[in-house]
Amino acid sequence: MSVEWVAVDWGTTNLRAWMIAADGRIIARQTAALGVSSVQKGQFEHTLLDLIGDSLESDRQTPVVICGMAGARQGWLEAPYVCAPCNPLHPGQAVQPETRDPRISVRILTGVMQARPSDVMRGEETQISGYLATHPDFDGVLCLPGTHSKWVRVSGGCIQSFRTFMTGECFNLLATNSVLSHVVAGEGWNAPSFIAALKQTLSAPQHLTAQLFSIRASALLEGLDRAQSRSELSGILMGLEIGGAREFWEKSKTVLIGHDKLVQVYRSALEAVSANVETADGEICTLDGLRRAYDSLKLCPVA
Amino acid sequence: MSVEWVAVDWGTTNLRAWMIAADGRIIARQTAALGVSSVQKGQFEHTLLDLIGDSLESDRQTPVVICGMAGARQGWLEAPYVCAPCNPLHPGQAVQPETRDPRISVRILTGVMQARPSDVMRGEETQISGYLATHPDFDGVLCLPGTHSKWVRVSGGCIQSFRTFMTGECFNLLATNSVLSHVVAGEGWNAPSFIAALKQTLSAPQHLTAQLFSIRASALLEGLDRAQSRSELSGILMGLEIGGAREFWEKSKTVLIGHDKLVQVYRSALEAVSANVETADGEICTLDGLRRAYDSLKLCPVA
Repeated sequence: MSVEWVAVDWGTTNLRAWMIAADGRIIARQTAALGVSSVQKGQFEHTLLDLIGDSLESDRQTPVVICGMAGARQGWLEAPYVCAPCNPLHPGQAVQPETRDPRISVRILTGVMQARPSDVMRGEETQISGYLATHPDFDGVLCLPGTHSKWVRVSGGCIQSFRTFMTGECFNLLATNSVLSHVVAGEGWNAPSFIAALKQTLSAPQHLTAQLFSIRASALLEGLDRAQSRSELSGILMGLEIGGAREFWEKSKTVLIGHDKLVQVYRSALEAVSANVETADGEICTLDGLRRAYDSLKLCPVA
Repeated sequence: MSVEWVAVDWGTTNLRAWMIAADGRIIARQTAALGVSSVQKGQFEHTLLDLIGDSLESDRQTPVVICGMAGARQGWLEAPYVCAPCNPLHPGQAVQPETRDPRISVRILTGVMQARPSDVMRGEETQISGYLATHPDFDGVLCLPGTHSKWVRVSGGCIQSFRTFMTGECFNLLATNSVLSHVVAGEGWNAPSFIAALKQTLSAPQHLTAQLFSIRASALLEGLDRAQSRSELSGILMGLEIGGAREFWEKSKTVLIGHDKLVQVYRSALEAVSANVETADGEICTLDGLRRAYDSLKLCPVA
């Protein structure tokens, strides 16, 4: 079966590609830890072809539709931001980087920005579009956990407003580069510690940096174990996000879109505050969004 | 003039030593970026002698009194923690690491711990003791800014309770290792941006990680300049600490003990919330504290 087009999610950390047949079936999938932050200017086409080249027909041009940080200033080619409130998808404004290999024709999709408060997204808008493909009348809140998690108010098929929380990046920095790295495990989970820390930050967010140091002190003085420390660190930071995103989840249904593990952490946090929460598969949303973009680009393989 | 004893502040990042004469005058001072975190086990005596060896008489033993992280588990030799409420100074419980060089006799001072909430300090207790040497009747709050800043309630010559905030470490991590490193300057200051960000976090601390991401978005969308970004980052994190430490400064006079630059940041933050604030020189407090310890150890040069 031949590849009609290639769907690509090119984020900061990872590059993921799906080879799609004419009937919509996924023929192959490829993933590499070759996110935008690890690719040098001028090496994007080469990096992409390393991953997908073997799947391409030599006698025709295959469309490649890309979402994510590949469209950032430090990415392959800067794609514009569309200003919210807006439809998540604007394939007409996608940019087309010059490519040397005649087998591919590349489009990089737009991101979404917001003026007040200042905010941006690249990649999540495509997942949102994908979610709306199967839930066209959705009216509520989508939460997309990640390094920079997004809370997005959606109605009428549009992104109305959104807010980004740096929770994931803060967790990684504190767990690996701070004084807490000595006491926080790389794996392991203690649900009661997570929930207790979450509730503590929810009720007194201003104590955050003091609570963080207490993890270190508890490990020194009471031998707090490393999995427990990890769960407390996560709970403290999630408490801040859940408190900060209250305006989103308090009066609306929240659908979590993302990977299993992280979605479970967010689900347990939201359930602890009795939020109305559902989940959706992040990869399916990404693919559905890229497919909508592909369909509307009306790009066809050139014979 | 010969050295009667050596005062040493050995922290995580720096090693500082003062050669003191019999009449109390400082004969020489030495500083090196050889904090405990950069010294291997077994190399502490060698590192110290590299710094102070030239000042020592060869025909007698000179006492060396050390405060700070040299007494931590990962330091030269672990010194006990005394549990607050307590006098800051317990020279009788200082530990004496074995040394090979006959010219020195070393004592490492104790730290202070607190059971609830879990907290520890090493080095600040000596500065507090030094401050109390010249203000024996002090009743109020001491704030010692730093990588891990301490807020300490003092009365009756004792540390009553304290709380550590990881503000400085969070600032350094975010400014140098996060997505904000692209937009935050290494130097530069914008006082109005600092105060505006401070007040924003004070009124809504739960938005902290969203505010952090807004620095990045504002730089992308509005060209927020790098000194302004740096001041906003500092203001956001200081707002959290000032809010978290409210119980300390709200009803008491606060004396800031530390280095000029950092003390000025804390002073402007505290003045923005109309706190009653004074300052004291951190180095003088350290020296006065080490001197009290030396006097009470009654260590004298051995002829």
